[in-house]
Amino acid sequence: MSKASVRSRKSRAGFSHLSRGGQARMVSVAGKRITARQARAEAWVRVGAAIAGRLRKSGGLAKGNVLETARLAGILAAKQTATMIPLCHPLPLDVVEVEARLVGGRVRIESRVACEGKTGVEMEAMTAVAIAALTVYDMCKSAGKGIRIGPIRLLEKSGGKSGPWRAEN
Amino acid sequence: MSKASVRSRKSRAGFSHLSRGGQARMVSVAGKRITARQARAEAWVRVGAAIAGRLRKSGGLAKGNVLETARLAGILAAKQTATMIPLCHPLPLDVVEVEARLVGGRVRIESRVACEGKTGVEMEAMTAVAIAALTVYDMCKSAGKGIRIGPIRLLEKSGGKSGPWRAEN
Amino acid sequence: MSKASVRSRKSRAGFSHLSRGGQARMVSVAGKRITARQARAEAWVRVGAAIAGRLRKSGGLAKGNVLETARLAGILAAKQTATMIPLCHPLPLDVVEVEARLVGGRVRIESRVACEGKTGVEMEAMTAVAIAALTVYDMCKSAGKGIRIGPIRLLEKSGGKSGPWRAEN
Amino acid sequence: MSKASVRSRKSRAGFSHLSRGGQARMVSVAGKRITARQARAEAWVRVGAAIAGRLRKSGGLAKGNVLETARLAGILAAKQTATMIPLCHPLPLDVVEVEARLVGGRVRIESRVACEGKTGVEMEAMTAVAIAALTVYDMCKSAGKGIRIGPIRLLEKSGGKSGPWRAEN
Amino acid sequence: MSKASVRSRKSRAGFSHLSRGGQARMVSVAGKRITARQARAEAWVRVGAAIAGRLRKSGGLAKGNVLETARLAGILAAKQTATMIPLCHPLPLDVVEVEARLVGGRVRIESRVACEGKTGVEMEAMTAVAIAALTVYDMCKSAGKGIRIGPIRLLEKSGGKSGPWRAEN
Amino acid sequence: MSKASVRSRKSRAGFSHLSRGGQARMVSVAGKRITARQARAEAWVRVGAAIAGRLRKSGGLAKGNVLETARLAGILAAKQTATMIPLCHPLPLDVVEVEARLVGGRVRIESRVACEGKTGVEMEAMTAVAIAALTVYDMCKSAGKGIRIGPIRLLEKSGGKSGPWRAEN
Repeated sequence: MSKASVRSRKSRAGFSHLSRGGQARMVSVAGKRITARQARAEAWVRVGAAIAGRLRKSGGLAKGNVLETARLAGILAAKQTATMIPLCHPLPLDVVEVEARLVGGRVRIESRVACEGKTGVEMEAMTAVAIAALTVYDMCKSAGKGIRIGPIRLLEKSGGKSGPWRAEN
Repeated sequence: MSKASVRSRKSRAGFSHLSRGGQARMVSVAGKRITARQARAEAWVRVGAAIAGRLRKSGGLAKGNVLETARLAGILAAKQTATMIPLCHPLPLDVVEVEARLVGGRVRIESRVACEGKTGVEMEAMTAVAIAALTVYDMCKSAGKGIRIGPIRLLEKSGGKSGPWRAEN
Repeated sequence: MSKASVRSRKSRAGFSHLSRGGQARMVSVAGKRITARQARAEAWVRVGAAIAGRLRKSGGLAKGNVLETARLAGILAAKQTATMIPLCHPLPLDVVEVEARLVGGRVRIESRVACEGKTGVEMEAMTAVAIAALTVYDMCKSAGKGIRIGPIRLLEKSGGKSGPWRAEN
Repeated sequence: MSKASVRSRKSRAGFSHLSRGGQARMVSVAGKRITARQARAEAWVRVGAAIAGRLRKSGGLAKGNVLETARLAGILAAKQTATMIPLCHPLPLDVVEVEARLVGGRVRIESRVACEGKTGVEMEAMTAVAIAALTVYDMCKSAGKGIRIGPIRLLEKSGGKSGPWRAEN
Repeated sequence: MSKASVRSRKSRAGFSHLSRGGQARMVSVAGKRITARQARAEAWVRVGAAIAGRLRKSGGLAKGNVLETARLAGILAAKQTATMIPLCHPLPLDVVEVEARLVGGRVRIESRVACEGKTGVEMEAMTAVAIAALTVYDMCKSAGKGIRIGPIRLLEKSGGKSGPWRAEN
Repeated sequence: MSKASVRSRKSRAGFSHLSRGGQARMVSVAGKRITARQARAEAWVRVGAAIAGRLRKSGGLAKGNVLETARLAGILAAKQTATMIPLCHPLPLDVVEVEARLVGGRVRIESRVACEGKTGVEMEAMTAVAIAALTVYDMCKSAGKGIRIGPIRLLEKSGGKSGPWRAEN
């Protein structure tokens, strides 16, 4: 496979996860330097005013436990990113932080993931907030239909050859 | 625990996943009847016109393999819902279908999950499209920043005591 | 394997998980009736007075979050019993309940698991409290050495041919 | 999140797994030095004289296979610690050793785990013996009720800034 | 998706795992009857005379522990088939039996898996022997190069609409 | 355990995965140097001429999706090697490549895995092709009985103290 795999390092149409032949592939990080990596992502869950009100009732106990459960689900999920997202690399994460709070009728979830590795932790940050958002959905769905998740997006990344990037706005 | 757990079947403020004391809990489905359940969900990934164009280039080979990888990731994820979403029940799924297609500058993912069980498969359908969307994000992120996921929402569910539900357009 | 496997249904010295030849094996539940099963287990974590005091400080916020994290870890673990304990059967659990509270210098964890299945849920109940106890240990170990877990024991089981059983005391 | 997360490095009441605000969190090991880490833990399973006798019968074949199954379950579990214990870091383990032997009416399980990493392997050592103990319980429970697990405790750890620690006795 | 998914029940060129459009899919078992299913599979590992001789030395202790470890790995793997083989259904297995013995210079592994379900357990039986064979390979590879695995094949299946099937020879 | 574990570094009859006492064990890689490791493995699946013909029909769409699904299953499986093969070390993989093509009436699967680590990636390469082969089997089994997998073998490895090795032929 030696020559073929050298060739396959070239990617198709700028997609590093597709070989020149168009096939899905992991990006080889062999020989890349280990640097400090960080990524932050956010997800919103639109629960609506009625559910938000019930979550806040009686001192916010319901709210606290929903958000705490979601945070823990997000932390656990980040550590399993490479077994869920097919082309991700297993990475030795230094930390996964997930914050969740109620903002009006929406829950805002934010993650920060850091590692020292050969590739970035964007997908770990994105997976953390996505699974946390699904957990909020799961815990609130009995209280009302029509909850929506989104947007989920990367806020910032740093480290690696491509350097820092920050979302607009 | 007998009396306590009878009490705890009462939920807090209409959240079946919170006990009267406000703690996160699985809903007991003991004694519930097994019925045919189905759920459909959708997720959108806003990749933008430039990436969409590149995916469609050269006969759509890139597009095909990105969407096919995402579909498979979604199918696999649905089967692991109960290990990722803390309060979900493990369910013997009859089928997980995931479709993905490019609609202008966005990818639309739709899942359908069915089982015969004591509780619904909404979370399996939601998890399938969420992980498929993360996979699209992962495979396209080298080609451009700023991709956003959302909305992710339930389209329809049927089966169980609460009966059928369908999202408004 | 037909004759051999009939023979192997006989167990060695009363251990159903050992074949007559002495080898580890799963017990076949083929042909057994599906009945309602339940099991309760408990685990104690001896954190000591100093750590218990700190957990209770300032309104018990620390305590609440340690115990809540442990409860969730226990619920998640119960659902993965069959992938951790080699000879357990995968079972469609109806509910996993985990309670945790501080009793003097110790944390007491109690689980209740129920399913309708061909075999019991003792190991799911035991795994839930064991992993919850390890989580308490993990979260308190920075505050003091020498925390001990134990005893972990089954409190009660019901369902199946062998019928109900209840621990003494 | 930058300022907030600097603040959150401060922990609550000496619990490194709780933020100053009291929320469960992973400890960030970013910037920590990689050093050789080791931990040893033990677990006891009180099976009682009758079961112990049966395990020893006929040359100890039953005993051998119960303990060997438990050892393997412990080794496998140590490698999955970070997916079971919510706030643990995934670590590249150098070795997991598990020993098990029958001491009178009890089984004694001891683990040793080593890695070169930024944080310790105490939880991997504790998880190994806990799951091995649950496996002994599972394999012996058909032969008699009332088996108890405990104590489970750390015996020794070394490496990292806090240096070596050894349990009394 | 209703009409589309009815259509997609038709498969492409006799491959039930491909939709008429050619896409990978799970087969829907919704509405199928639950029947008793069984499957047996075998795998061979050609370790060669030299390694086989060493495994048999000194009363066969080495042999026993290699084969026992392989058997347990196979049992555990069967329970995880649906998380490894993308289009498999999660099934409530009644039993997984794995036997392994040394036949000349080869190890022969045989599995038997049974369940009551809507679809067969062929893949569980095949996965059990494949992972057991990989485990033999892993444990013997330090003792000599060039070990080969194969053939791996289904021996027999029964249950379901297609009825019993048995391999020739 | 200190003296015992020094002794246990000696292996039985040349099997590094067996202690001198004959027990299954992980090999300790503590203190070993991190070097660049690579391994390649192959697996064959004999589907027969009839199935091969159907896979090639209509421009090869069926073939493409079967092989692509198998490739992805192999990539995902390689990342889970240490949770399936009991004595393997978790490793930070740099890349997993899997190729699959139809050669007459057989499918040939080849993997290449690389990492920088203290031990080799032979088992990751072997696991990738084995699970990919099982996936081909799963997707083709409805189209005909009697498909066989094998041989599965290592083609090449490099890195580490034992240096490069290449299969004959």
